Amino acid sequence: MELVASEIDIGTHLPTVLLNGGDAEELGVHPLDRVQITTDGTTVIGIVEVTEELVAPGTLGVTRRLGHVEGPVDVTAAPKPRSVRYVRKKLDDRELEADEIRAIVRDIEADRLNDVELSAYVSGIYSNGMSDAETTHLTEAMAEVGERLSWPDEVVADKHSIGGVAGNRVSPILVPIIAAAGVKIPKTSSRAVTSPAGTADTMAVFCDVEFSIPELRDIVEETNGCLVWGGSVDLSPVDDKIIRAENPLSLDPTGQLIASVLSKKYSAGSTHVIIDVPYGEGAKVDGHSEARELGDDFERVGDHLGVRVAPAVSPGHEPIGRGIGPVLEARDVLAVLGGDGPEDLRLKSERLAYLLLDACGVDADAGELLDSGRAEEKFREIVAAQGGDPDVTAGDLTPAEERAAVTADRAGVVTHIDNRIVSELGRRAGAPKDPGAGLTLARHVGDEVATGDELFTVYAETTGKLDDALALADRAEPVRVRSREEAMVERI
Amino acid sequence: MELVASEIDIGTHLPTVLLNGGDAEELGVHPLDRVQITTDGTTVIGIVEVTEELVAPGTLGVTRRLGHVEGPVDVTAAPKPRSVRYVRKKLDDRELEADEIRAIVRDIEADRLNDVELSAYVSGIYSNGMSDAETTHLTEAMAEVGERLSWPDEVVADKHSIGGVAGNRVSPILVPIIAAAGVKIPKTSSRAVTSPAGTADTMAVFCDVEFSIPELRDIVEETNGCLVWGGSVDLSPVDDKIIRAENPLSLDPTGQLIASVLSKKYSAGSTHVIIDVPYGEGAKVDGHSEARELGDDFERVGDHLGVRVAPAVSPGHEPIGRGIGPVLEARDVLAVLGGDGPEDLRLKSERLAYLLLDACGVDADAGELLDSGRAEEKFREIVAAQGGDPDVTAGDLTPAEERAAVTADRAGVVTHIDNRIVSELGRRAGAPKDPGAGLTLARHVGDEVATGDELFTVYAETTGKLDDALALADRAEPVRVRSREEAMVERI
Repeated sequence: MELVASEIDIGTHLPTVLLNGGDAEELGVHPLDRVQITTDGTTVIGIVEVTEELVAPGTLGVTRRLGHVEGPVDVTAAPKPRSVRYVRKKLDDRELEADEIRAIVRDIEADRLNDVELSAYVSGIYSNGMSDAETTHLTEAMAEVGERLSWPDEVVADKHSIGGVAGNRVSPILVPIIAAAGVKIPKTSSRAVTSPAGTADTMAVFCDVEFSIPELRDIVEETNGCLVWGGSVDLSPVDDKIIRAENPLSLDPTGQLIASVLSKKYSAGSTHVIIDVPYGEGAKVDGHSEARELGDDFERVGDHLGVRVAPAVSPGHEPIGRGIGPVLEARDVLAVLGGDGPEDLRLKSERLAYLLLDACGVDADAGELLDSGRAEEKFREIVAAQGGDPDVTAGDLTPAEERAAVTADRAGVVTHIDNRIVSELGRRAGAPKDPGAGLTLARHVGDEVATGDELFTVYAETTGKLDDALALADRAEPVRVRSREEAMVERI
Repeated sequence: MELVASEIDIGTHLPTVLLNGGDAEELGVHPLDRVQITTDGTTVIGIVEVTEELVAPGTLGVTRRLGHVEGPVDVTAAPKPRSVRYVRKKLDDRELEADEIRAIVRDIEADRLNDVELSAYVSGIYSNGMSDAETTHLTEAMAEVGERLSWPDEVVADKHSIGGVAGNRVSPILVPIIAAAGVKIPKTSSRAVTSPAGTADTMAVFCDVEFSIPELRDIVEETNGCLVWGGSVDLSPVDDKIIRAENPLSLDPTGQLIASVLSKKYSAGSTHVIIDVPYGEGAKVDGHSEARELGDDFERVGDHLGVRVAPAVSPGHEPIGRGIGPVLEARDVLAVLGGDGPEDLRLKSERLAYLLLDACGVDADAGELLDSGRAEEKFREIVAAQGGDPDVTAGDLTPAEERAAVTADRAGVVTHIDNRIVSELGRRAGAPKDPGAGLTLARHVGDEVATGDELFTVYAETTGKLDDALALADRAEPVRVRSREEAMVERI
């Protein structure tokens, strides 16, 4: 069918084309079907949306993802991409072959799947699970489509935490310990998605975090380590696209999680990776055995890929450290590196560094590297290499001005500090958009409190945001205080 | 957050709002999240898309589904609708309660779910199935949101075929038989989605098919029957919305299928329904036992609803009748009613009418009603009541002008006529958009043919469409001819 194409901007990242209802009927295509558009011998495939008013009969609205298409074009119905069949196969609970998984990954990368198909993919692997073989194929396929780093070293270390624990800012402490031990660790981290700070947000308080792959290579060559934002180096571009279909239902299918993490480590050229799986009420994984199982899954898939994975589990029933939010967490990091700071954060970082060095077969003492100040020195080297001030002090890290302490309304013992509520509270206060916003925790689980004792303090840039956060605190009980008796037995 | 709203048309049916990237970050919302928009004391919920260029920072693009929203508005992040949790519950393979299913159906009806969530719903019930209780709740919930008819009669008949069989135009023959027997049958039918003709498309050759509910009531009061397009009476509005997520992966989850069919029958006020499940190679259901099972499922869910379902299975390994396409099928219908026409179509219609009358407990002879011409008389009454010409003859029904016969390239026996390929061929020829387009089959499965014998003839309005259809016929073998030996044993 001959149509006249013109560009139209509807704010989509997909290769969408808009057809008038009558033309769609004539072509026999429905919303989300594909059409092939040919002009001057070149052909592109568009995903159909149907409208009665936005485009007139005889015309075709073309979005920018399809490139520059203007004037008379020939439009015909086109088949669905091959990978749609494999998505359906997974919904039928049949195991996918390596080339079928590769086809899905490539089509996601090239934006060839619409939202319905992408969601069906995520739903299918969530509902029906993935075998080790499928997860390995997925990891390889995801690693294939991004950039890949390689290093001359036999051992290149890396670390990942499954997340879900507020304030858990281990990486900026662990990376300098490993680097100071003489082992390369090209660490990429995420920005916050639903939390008040990702490691990349916290590091952005000290220095730049957006670098190209050659820049990342230079930083690691110079210092052995880096702490950069993964999104800027594009090691696993498919991941960001899948998130669109994971977020609305908060789905995090295990096979996809493992493939997302390990494909990035594999692409970073890492050979030895420690995986931290926090577990407990309010963490991503509820129970200890479930956490161990997930760790084992990581290890098995790592074996297939030739990446040595050291799985670790850790209690995740309360936040780690004192500060929540980029600046407040940055202060904890600097304090721990300086020999002070929250004990839980120091112990966890040191222990994970010890296990990682052990897995790497490197004879170095993580505790000594931290206590001697060599890790702090290395951290300041990395900050300098990433364009920050190596002489930064706690005094340079200023939290937001508006503050309010929340106190205990009864005497008792702290029985639980909920990661999800604490995170939501930090976001209400303005983090990570306002780096100085967030909260500091004054108590840990198990601490005794008297009525009126401070539980935590909220920091925000405006009184509006402060009030928003306090209203949530009032409603949702981020820090649970119970009498000794209630703490022993909970009524359901 | 204060933003300035202006209307923007991006051709979506959802309550989408467009935010600039920076504003979305400030609000802490991601694509497909919700925001609450307040202006002058009224509040609406929008589904977020994020763009860097289409809307400027500080502004909000509002699509028409949200009504007229202009000028300064207050925008805050809003939670997901409650039903999203239930969709996830189904992905976790947990059984849904009645009120949870009702919440999903209402949110779909009100366009509150985005494509990702809608697809996850369809994927979940496809992958994990639905219990009888769930299917019953779904049927009731779907019936609740549309219009509902009620009749003074104790017995109101209805009929549905699962579809997938080309040319299977039973309803225009069965409905007049039942109506002539004195039983009301308020039949609604669909237009073609992926086939060359639905019953509504075929009836549109004779008369109007789009009526309001009061008009439908008048037609049935006058004639006992009707043959109208279901889309115009809005008996199950949710159905059309779910199709958007079913089409891309060609998913047709059993529970959803049963609920879609029975909710329409329930809303039409029908008490006794015959369900025809064709089975065989090329039909929707492959095997006989699978077809029986589906029929039984319909019967059980019907029992819960208080609708008596008479399930029937029928061979669906080849098309029924001679013509494929609106006009060509209309000619078959008129011929059968006139005592002539394709024998398979006559037998199937008569048999289903017999079974339906039997289920209704009505003592009437379907064969006699057809042979005596009383069914034809009733058909012409209905055509007249629907604004058509009651004296229509075969001569008034003119197929498309461009024609080409396809002949056997070898001698042998017809072993298979593929419904899917035949349907695709009819669509390539222009049906249902061109009512006279399609094909006529000259042979049935089991017929012997000599080289050069006609297998079928294609009809199209233009030579381009004719060539398109013939090219497919050349490639895809809609009518399979094999030697006697090959017909006995197929090599795989």
